[in-house]
Amino acid sequence: MSGPVVALSGGVGGAKLALGLSRVLPAEALIVVANTGDDFEHLGLSISPDIDTLTYALGGVDNPATGWGRRDETWHFMTALAELGGETWFRLGDQDLATHVERTRRLRAGETLSAVTDAFRRAFGIAARILPMSDDRVRTRVRTEEAGWLDFQDWFVRLQCRPAVRELTFDGAAAARAQPEFLAALADPALRCVVICPSNPFISVAPILALPGVRAALEACRAPVVGVSPIIGGRAVKGPTARMFAELGLGAPSAAGVAAHYGRLLDGYVMDAMDAAEAATMQGPRVALAQTLMATLDDREALGRAVLDLADSLRA
Amino acid sequence: MSGPVVALSGGVGGAKLALGLSRVLPAEALIVVANTGDDFEHLGLSISPDIDTLTYALGGVDNPATGWGRRDETWHFMTALAELGGETWFRLGDQDLATHVERTRRLRAGETLSAVTDAFRRAFGIAARILPMSDDRVRTRVRTEEAGWLDFQDWFVRLQCRPAVRELTFDGAAAARAQPEFLAALADPALRCVVICPSNPFISVAPILALPGVRAALEACRAPVVGVSPIIGGRAVKGPTARMFAELGLGAPSAAGVAAHYGRLLDGYVMDAMDAAEAATMQGPRVALAQTLMATLDDREALGRAVLDLADSLRA
Repeated sequence: MSGPVVALSGGVGGAKLALGLSRVLPAEALIVVANTGDDFEHLGLSISPDIDTLTYALGGVDNPATGWGRRDETWHFMTALAELGGETWFRLGDQDLATHVERTRRLRAGETLSAVTDAFRRAFGIAARILPMSDDRVRTRVRTEEAGWLDFQDWFVRLQCRPAVRELTFDGAAAARAQPEFLAALADPALRCVVICPSNPFISVAPILALPGVRAALEACRAPVVGVSPIIGGRAVKGPTARMFAELGLGAPSAAGVAAHYGRLLDGYVMDAMDAAEAATMQGPRVALAQTLMATLDDREALGRAVLDLADSLRA
Repeated sequence: MSGPVVALSGGVGGAKLALGLSRVLPAEALIVVANTGDDFEHLGLSISPDIDTLTYALGGVDNPATGWGRRDETWHFMTALAELGGETWFRLGDQDLATHVERTRRLRAGETLSAVTDAFRRAFGIAARILPMSDDRVRTRVRTEEAGWLDFQDWFVRLQCRPAVRELTFDGAAAARAQPEFLAALADPALRCVVICPSNPFISVAPILALPGVRAALEACRAPVVGVSPIIGGRAVKGPTARMFAELGLGAPSAAGVAAHYGRLLDGYVMDAMDAAEAATMQGPRVALAQTLMATLDDREALGRAVLDLADSLRA
């Protein structure tokens, strides 16, 4: 099979699968659509965490230890900023900072986030496209039990996800336009499939689905839509995904629960082999089992192949 | 003698003497007024080169090899910026960058440049005051033979002073207000003296003198005004000072020529011992000879003492 593949992604988990897909697909076949609800302005800089995690992962300069930021990073800026009494709760490495300073400069000069993102992926020698979900401003906010409404990074990084989440909103989403090339790809008759990466469904994928026209375009799309579970054995690989089930009143965390959350969007669903018993009871999308934990590069490629195989089987 | 000492300064040469003065004066007696005509906006950051050179020198974190920037500096940001295709003609070290990012953030939040500068000198444990010459925007521009009017840093750093200078202007100076504490210090009956540091008279000191009321306040000031020659044996220690005499039609560069440029502002003038013959023929200010080349910390302190001795002798 050939044809473009669209992957909807948040940060770490999505970036791992995107890298796997990029290595098993023809060059330039992959179009990764990045959540920008996590974007924020900090120290006067425009920061796009999910775009950067994807760019660094696909460019081979990601930090495997943290899942964010660049490898072989140094922290001289941060140390000097602390000496000046600056805010240090969001850690910006010396190399990473170049991304934020140059993006901020280009945005102020009138470039779109899409144009900046494309220039950067070219600079890193990445063949895949990376598209922000929208060039318009969307900001995820979190209503917490303890602290009321918080900006996303305030909750996620500064408070380290500690306050329980009761509600999420994506400010600006209703008026934002989905990235035009993203919508065009969904309407492309040659589209091979859409992959919903194993990112947090509530905070990474939901902002993308909240954009006008995206859900309808996915439902209307003739190519199969295949999700990958971010939950393995009732637990999330990383981050607050599992916890948020209970906090949002969605019961116990499970792979099936994520599929139910996506509902009829999904034509196919890849669950971890560990969840075979749960898979056997599921209704709805066609399920494939695979190893979804992506510790190694081989794991990422293998999961990429499993996703494509399931998608291709749905077309056949 | 006690009482405050006001020093007018540009970057490197002025910072050396300011450090010397700070070490031979009582703590907090020194008020350094920094040229801000060199300030500019680059990569979206507000950069104040002379304030920073003074702050780093007085804070003991200056780079002795370059005269600008911080010691033990690293360049990971710059390398990453180059990879992204960003502008690299103005070199920003990883630690130095913290100063610019935090200053820019504070200015955007509504703080004055004076407040930011004061916060930073406190963070570096500096007892002396450092005052920007004005909180209003003043921008030095240079008319060159080859390239017409240029922004100062374009000429100074990007073109490395290569185009011959025919004219200088200090945009905004006529409407700018001199820093109020600077004017208050000049009117202070306890003022011990004013020092015009051995900075470039045309590009470092002239912007300060161009501010409304400054020249009149210096002339009306009851404390002696003592200059220090930036020219030794017809040559400048650093930078384009000597060259600019010819380019601006002021004849051969000389210590006496600098004194003539300041005219009746000067009550005293410290020249290098090498220029004793020239000193013997000078009219106008009372002249003292000293070693004005400040290679070591001892040199800086000795020149500081020589300046104060001359000033005190003018009061007696």
